[in-house]
Amino acid sequence: MTMEAFGEESDDERRWEESVEDLVPGWLSEEELAGARARVPMLYVEALPVRVDANGRVSQVGLLLRGSPTTGRMTRSLVSGRVLHGEELRDALMRHLEKDLGATAFPVVPTSMVPAAVAEYFPWPTGRFQDWRQHAVALAFVVPVSGECQPRQDALELSWLTPEEAVSEEITAELEGGRASLLRQLLHHADAI
Amino acid sequence: MTMEAFGEESDDERRWEESVEDLVPGWLSEEELAGARARVPMLYVEALPVRVDANGRVSQVGLLLRGSPTTGRMTRSLVSGRVLHGEELRDALMRHLEKDLGATAFPVVPTSMVPAAVAEYFPWPTGRFQDWRQHAVALAFVVPVSGECQPRQDALELSWLTPEEAVSEEITAELEGGRASLLRQLLHHADAI
Amino acid sequence: MTMEAFGEESDDERRWEESVEDLVPGWLSEEELAGARARVPMLYVEALPVRVDANGRVSQVGLLLRGSPTTGRMTRSLVSGRVLHGEELRDALMRHLEKDLGATAFPVVPTSMVPAAVAEYFPWPTGRFQDWRQHAVALAFVVPVSGECQPRQDALELSWLTPEEAVSEEITAELEGGRASLLRQLLHHADAI
Amino acid sequence: MTMEAFGEESDDERRWEESVEDLVPGWLSEEELAGARARVPMLYVEALPVRVDANGRVSQVGLLLRGSPTTGRMTRSLVSGRVLHGEELRDALMRHLEKDLGATAFPVVPTSMVPAAVAEYFPWPTGRFQDWRQHAVALAFVVPVSGECQPRQDALELSWLTPEEAVSEEITAELEGGRASLLRQLLHHADAI
Repeated sequence: MTMEAFGEESDDERRWEESVEDLVPGWLSEEELAGARARVPMLYVEALPVRVDANGRVSQVGLLLRGSPTTGRMTRSLVSGRVLHGEELRDALMRHLEKDLGATAFPVVPTSMVPAAVAEYFPWPTGRFQDWRQHAVALAFVVPVSGECQPRQDALELSWLTPEEAVSEEITAELEGGRASLLRQLLHHADAI
Repeated sequence: MTMEAFGEESDDERRWEESVEDLVPGWLSEEELAGARARVPMLYVEALPVRVDANGRVSQVGLLLRGSPTTGRMTRSLVSGRVLHGEELRDALMRHLEKDLGATAFPVVPTSMVPAAVAEYFPWPTGRFQDWRQHAVALAFVVPVSGECQPRQDALELSWLTPEEAVSEEITAELEGGRASLLRQLLHHADAI
Repeated sequence: MTMEAFGEESDDERRWEESVEDLVPGWLSEEELAGARARVPMLYVEALPVRVDANGRVSQVGLLLRGSPTTGRMTRSLVSGRVLHGEELRDALMRHLEKDLGATAFPVVPTSMVPAAVAEYFPWPTGRFQDWRQHAVALAFVVPVSGECQPRQDALELSWLTPEEAVSEEITAELEGGRASLLRQLLHHADAI
Repeated sequence: MTMEAFGEESDDERRWEESVEDLVPGWLSEEELAGARARVPMLYVEALPVRVDANGRVSQVGLLLRGSPTTGRMTRSLVSGRVLHGEELRDALMRHLEKDLGATAFPVVPTSMVPAAVAEYFPWPTGRFQDWRQHAVALAFVVPVSGECQPRQDALELSWLTPEEAVSEEITAELEGGRASLLRQLLHHADAI
């Protein structure tokens, strides 16, 4: 995590605002959201999309690749997003999967909301995970998808990689906020590395 | 668990022997199996088949209903079976799911082999779980199935119940070996009760 | 969960406010907290204190017993509390354990923050869990304690019960917000029922 | 995992035999054990000893260092051992912790036997984990120890390392049977790397 990364996510934030407005128009103004963010930890769900064989063995890992509109720097991420007030975790998980992978990805949301990993992001560089915007706690899951994935426009690409490729130095260097560690934890949990 | 239950599973045992012979003809004689059983704990996998909605919420629970050929008493069980020498856990899980639910059940085997529950069966009545035949340790999973289930002949019926029905006194009284507790643990894990 | 329970927790809320003020005097005004609560899910940790034998087997379960100052009705609860902005989960867990069990309880906070259960509380009666004040998501853990527990004054009593007593109808009827289900899930997870 | 490692564990096997004989003299002859091993998967428990701070944060990791009596090559391992017939998992876990760490290590055996990781060892080099002696399935746990550790004589040393040191290339190269992957999975689970 370099310091540059801290100043880079304004497109991400905008994207998130838009998605909230799609659902509940006008519900949370930017000021209101900023107010909550400064006062309480934000609850997130995070998902690693995978391709599996008939017996659940992971063959491929999906990572979102996104270019910064300002710097052109490419970054990779998992499917990730905030849980809204009143929203169940599994509904938030599905909403963000559909938003990032399209309507025909057919993700298999887990039956249990006990996560495969818990990631604690802080807006300062001391912890394992960083998010300059906020203190966020993400419940993270491995999610098999069987359909066609068509990322929305702001995610330039969804790359399918083997588990070994996904944890290579080249790829993990492009993961933000310490998520290389989260990626490895999820792949270990799925017996894939 | 009544003492009668301890003397009742000869059809189960036969069924199990047959399945081994299907796979590896002549591989383990009854004597060899009995020998191993008396000396080391047997490793099992166990699965609770469920129907889920698009977001992974459990709507129905599948329990196998089986009549004893000798006494006519009906008993219920989860999908369950031994892990063979050289067999991966996920392959054993799929093999037993196909054996008990048929080839068109389309079970979703979990990506992780970290189980939702671990059940320790002993051939004496002291523990939570009993199996008069052996000391067995079962790794138990909740497994969504989306296709048609056609149990093999010796399982008279696969009943689909709501989670509430499944944990009713009437149904749990028909579960063997203390599995009512395992059923509840799995349904709690899936946020279904 | 009866409707009366929804109007009863003002002492709880006060207690919570006090604890926040102890830590960060004046940090969150009641208005600010109410504002955040209305906008985003609140993140909680919840702990079931247990006594264990040398091999980790649960022998007793600790439940907090608390009288409402207005109605005199007794209610039981687990150790529970909000995660503050900037606070790590394990630090929040320890803070609430110390607050509710005293400084000499010597709780063993788990090494992993992957919870034994996740409980989603909503301020309306539709879900498994209810909390009239807010939408809260609690990461729940089983926590062995080896020392002396001296609950703070507003918790009249910490009762130690056997796991069987703890899940009896009499006791679970006194648990608020659907926590009987959470208690059972945690005890199943610890192989105690 | 090099092929040399496959021919090296006769001291390990002997050690294991001795421990069985300590408990149940004469119970399993070498032939009987070999017979069971060739026919069914062996059930193991495995533990990573850790030092934690008051809030459960891992500060140090304990790895056993052992020299081969024939080749002098040093290898590292976790606490590991077979579950005996009739033995509960948590009792097996404690027995092996005491055997490898001594009577004053004061390990905190987890309340739940749902493992942090499951490792499947095969006697051929295809899987993630290898054990030339047998097909073994290990339920693996992270276990805090608070006392003095005095390894038995055949383990030359118990080294305490920081999590970062433990996953360094130098150290993981000395772990046998693919356990570097297991070590990383357990440390990820404990939020330590």
